[in-house]
Formats: sequence, C-alpha cells, structure tokens
Amino acid sequence: MIGVGLIGGSFALALKKARAVTHVVGAGRTRRNLARARRLGIIDEIAADAATAVRDADFVLLGMPVGQMPEVMAQIAPHVGQRTVITDAGSTKQDVVDSARRFLKQHLARFVPAHPIAGTEKSGADAAFATLYCNRNVILTPQRETARNAVALVKRAWETCGARVLRLRPAEHDAIFAAVSHLPHVAVFSLVVSLARRPDARRLLGFSAGGLRDTVRIAGSSPEMWRDICISNRSALLAVLDAYLEELERARAAVATADGKALGAMFESARAARARWLVPRQS
Amino acid sequence: MIGVGLIGGSFALALKKARAVTHVVGAGRTRRNLARARRLGIIDEIAADAATAVRDADFVLLGMPVGQMPEVMAQIAPHVGQRTVITDAGSTKQDVVDSARRFLKQHLARFVPAHPIAGTEKSGADAAFATLYCNRNVILTPQRETARNAVALVKRAWETCGARVLRLRPAEHDAIFAAVSHLPHVAVFSLVVSLARRPDARRLLGFSAGGLRDTVRIAGSSPEMWRDICISNRSALLAVLDAYLEELERARAAVATADGKALGAMFESARAARARWLVPRQS
Repeated sequence: MIGVGLIGGSFALALKKARAVTHVVGAGRTRRNLARARRLGIIDEIAADAATAVRDADFVLLGMPVGQMPEVMAQIAPHVGQRTVITDAGSTKQDVVDSARRFLKQHLARFVPAHPIAGTEKSGADAAFATLYCNRNVILTPQRETARNAVALVKRAWETCGARVLRLRPAEHDAIFAAVSHLPHVAVFSLVVSLARRPDARRLLGFSAGGLRDTVRIAGSSPEMWRDICISNRSALLAVLDAYLEELERARAAVATADGKALGAMFESARAARARWLVPRQS
Repeated sequence: MIGVGLIGGSFALALKKARAVTHVVGAGRTRRNLARARRLGIIDEIAADAATAVRDADFVLLGMPVGQMPEVMAQIAPHVGQRTVITDAGSTKQDVVDSARRFLKQHLARFVPAHPIAGTEKSGADAAFATLYCNRNVILTPQRETARNAVALVKRAWETCGARVLRLRPAEHDAIFAAVSHLPHVAVFSLVVSLARRPDARRLLGFSAGGLRDTVRIAGSSPEMWRDICISNRSALLAVLDAYLEELERARAAVATADGKALGAMFESARAARARWLVPRQS
C-alpha cells in the first residue's frame, strides 16, 4: 500500500477484518502517519519507500492524491513482480490511465484503475475505519489491455469491503465526477474563502446556524487531494464551473432587479431536483 | 399567530410545553395546514383571517415569509389591542422594521422585531417541534421607540423556548445574515439548478456520495421564504454575492492555468477557516 490515509487505511482494515489479506506493507511520505497506521493495526510493516513496499507484493494499492501517481508509478515499475495486480483509488481516472500507460509499462495489463465513491472530510490513517465502503459504489475503468483476472481480483477485493462495483469509461467517469463532486468542492471552498477574507469573519460565523455547517463540511477535505483533482480533471471541471457561474449570474440579475418570480422559480426548481435525487438513495 | 409553519409552530409547541400560553389562535393562507396544526396541538383555534386572530390577543407572532409582512401588518393594525405585544420571526430585519413603522402605526412601541436562528430544510406545521430553539440564538432588533416591557416579554418568551437572546441593529443583522445564511442558500440553490439543467442529471446524481447530499441539504428550504429574503435583503446580499463570484473567478483562473500552488493555498485557507469557526460551536 502506497499512501496509508483514510482511503487506503479503510481498504486495509476492511480486508483484514474479512481475513482476505495476511500481511500489509505500507509506504508513504510521513513517518509519523505510517507509525500511527501500524499502531492502529492498519499495516503490519513500514517500508522505507514505495519501491521496497511493492517487492514480493501480490497486490498493490496506490492510495495517494492523483498528482503523485506519475512519480510513484515510475518508482515502483522496476520493482513490481510479474504477477502482481495493481490498483489505485484516485478520484480522477483519465489522467491516472494516461500515467499508467506511460510509467507502468510491462505491468499495464495488471493495473486496474478504480475510484471508491466514499470518504469523509477527514484525512490520514487516524480517520480510517473498516466500514467506510459498505454499500458504497466503486467505479472501475479497465482498458482494452487490462487482464480479466486482474479486474476480477480487484472487483472481489472491493466487494469484500462491502462495496458495489460498477464500470465506466475514464472520460465518462471524469465528466460525472466533475459535476457531482469536483464542482461542489470548488463552490464550497470558494464560499468559505470569500467569508474568511472578511475582517469580521470570526464574529460572523458565531451567528451561523446548522445549515451553513452542513454546507461547508466538505471544505474540511484535504487541500492537497482536491488541488490535484481539480488540476487533473480541469477541462471537465471548467465546463461545469462555467455552467455554475452562469447560473449564479442569473440569480444575481434576479436579485438585483427584485425579480421575485424568476428567483422563486429557480429556488423551486432546485428544491424539486433535490427531492427527485433523494428518492432513490438509501444510505 | 399569523403563519403556523415550522417557525411559528415550534414556538407555540415550546411555549405550550412550558405552560407559558393558554390559548393559541392561528391564521394562515392554507386551511389544510391550519387544520393539521390544530390536530397536532400547535394551535387551539383556527381564525378566519389575520384580523380576527389578533382580536383579544395578548401576544402576536408574525410567522410568515418576510414578503407578506407589509400586507399582514396593514391587515391587523386596526384590530390589535392597545396593550398587545407583537413580534415577528422574519429572516431579515431592516425591511420588517420599515414595514412596522409604516403599517403598525400606534402599535409600533409594542412591536419587537426578532429573528430566531434556527430551522430545518422542512416547512409547514408538520415540520414543527418543541425543541427547535433549544440552545439557539434569537436576535432582537428593538428600535429607539420600542417599549422596554415589550422587549422584556419577547425576550422571556424566547428564553422559555430554550433560546439565547442577543441584540443587533437591523442593518448589522442583515449584513451578517447576508453572509452566513442568504449567500450560502443562493450558492447552493444555483449549484443544484446548474446540475439539474443537464440532460443526464438523474444518472449523475446516482453517483454522488454523502458530501454532495450534505452540501445541498439547504436547497430543500422553502423557495417562497428564500425568494422573499433575497429580495428584502438584496443590497447586502449583492455585496457578498459579488465577493463570492470574484472568489470563484479566482479559482477558475487557477484551474484553467493549472496553478496548483494558488489552488492549494486557497483550499488550505478554506480548511483552516472552517476549523477555526467550528471550535467555538457546541451544538
């Protein structure tokens, strides 16, 4: 396991709980987080680096922010065994697939790109828990050259964690998550910063109710992870961000002209859309 | 009580639970909601209209969207008793104070403008519950001419509901809530509409995780109430909305130029701000 945070750590805990793995070796950037992961029983051994961690491994999870994928792939490629299956948990897929093509070379057929749709606003090994993936979706984006048995193994691993496994094309995945995940994060990070810039920010927030707290929960997410996601998926993100800016400008115009009819219709359509979306959700 | 929804209904339930009121008369626009409120024990009697409801009342709560305040104030003014204390629960204050000056006339000294900082995304009598105001802030914005004993009575009523009572000037109140409440609602309503406009909206949302659900919770709020708030408080709202649009444009520029440093710094500052704000909050 390269990167032992919320995502990788929860994956390891779930597999250990199911007795699906025997010995987990972790590598990562901060010694302190790795030591903590070992104390928590997430990993059994700390490796000096990524290259050392993958030696003799049957299965490798790349669990770091997507911006680090190319470098880590280049580091491990010479050391990965000829039967080792590799997967990742990156939040974007086209760029990860491109990096794999470039850096994993002879291991490409055993690399299965994956994205578990789960997480909290916390990060690090301390935030990991075994049931994070229960009833969650995991998207696999295998390529033409991906070996069937590698896909089957990765699918089984995620199902063992309690997840439902779906498949998408990388570009399709990236367009969907630009809309439902990356845009909302940019919208909320920007909202918080625009409030935080005010000299009276602290006093302001003392007056806020529960609505704001729920809305800005995702602003607690890892800045590094989200920076990498936004840059990796920038073309899809810009398209949805521009649609959002247009919508805000429409709202602004309705407010400025006191056009209650337009504003009421807009809010009503938002409420109806949210209600429709919530119907099929169970968890 | 004029308007027996989540806000007014919860106020009545809390006062009844504390045995602070004996007979609650309700008026409102929809007979069905009033009948439901009576069945739920929120009100004891349904009045034919606002003017009838206030006759013989010791205490009047105006619990409807702020856009209806002028009309309702004009309707009740000729029928309110000479000792009756009137309060409201409107989400904006300067416009409510202006309406009171214009329409409540000889009753102005006994009108205490108030705003309870509580609510859920639900509305109507069905959504009301007695503990809504426990440990919540209620802002009073009394004017120079407001009678002290009227302020004391309204303060005691809200404290009986379990709330903390604070005072602000109306303009100060409106600037604060434009930032911490009205802007976040416009941002989220617009986000939901921009996603809902897409032909693949329904499929998209099947892929969303918990983050989006929390973020868009407030898009379930009453469209009519929020339309009125945005129009009533439009000058303060436009100021914070423009600051938000600027921040989003900065984020857009960083994404478009793949400026990871700027984007990471922005997200980090949002995370730090959210963490600071959360510290003093208990509930």
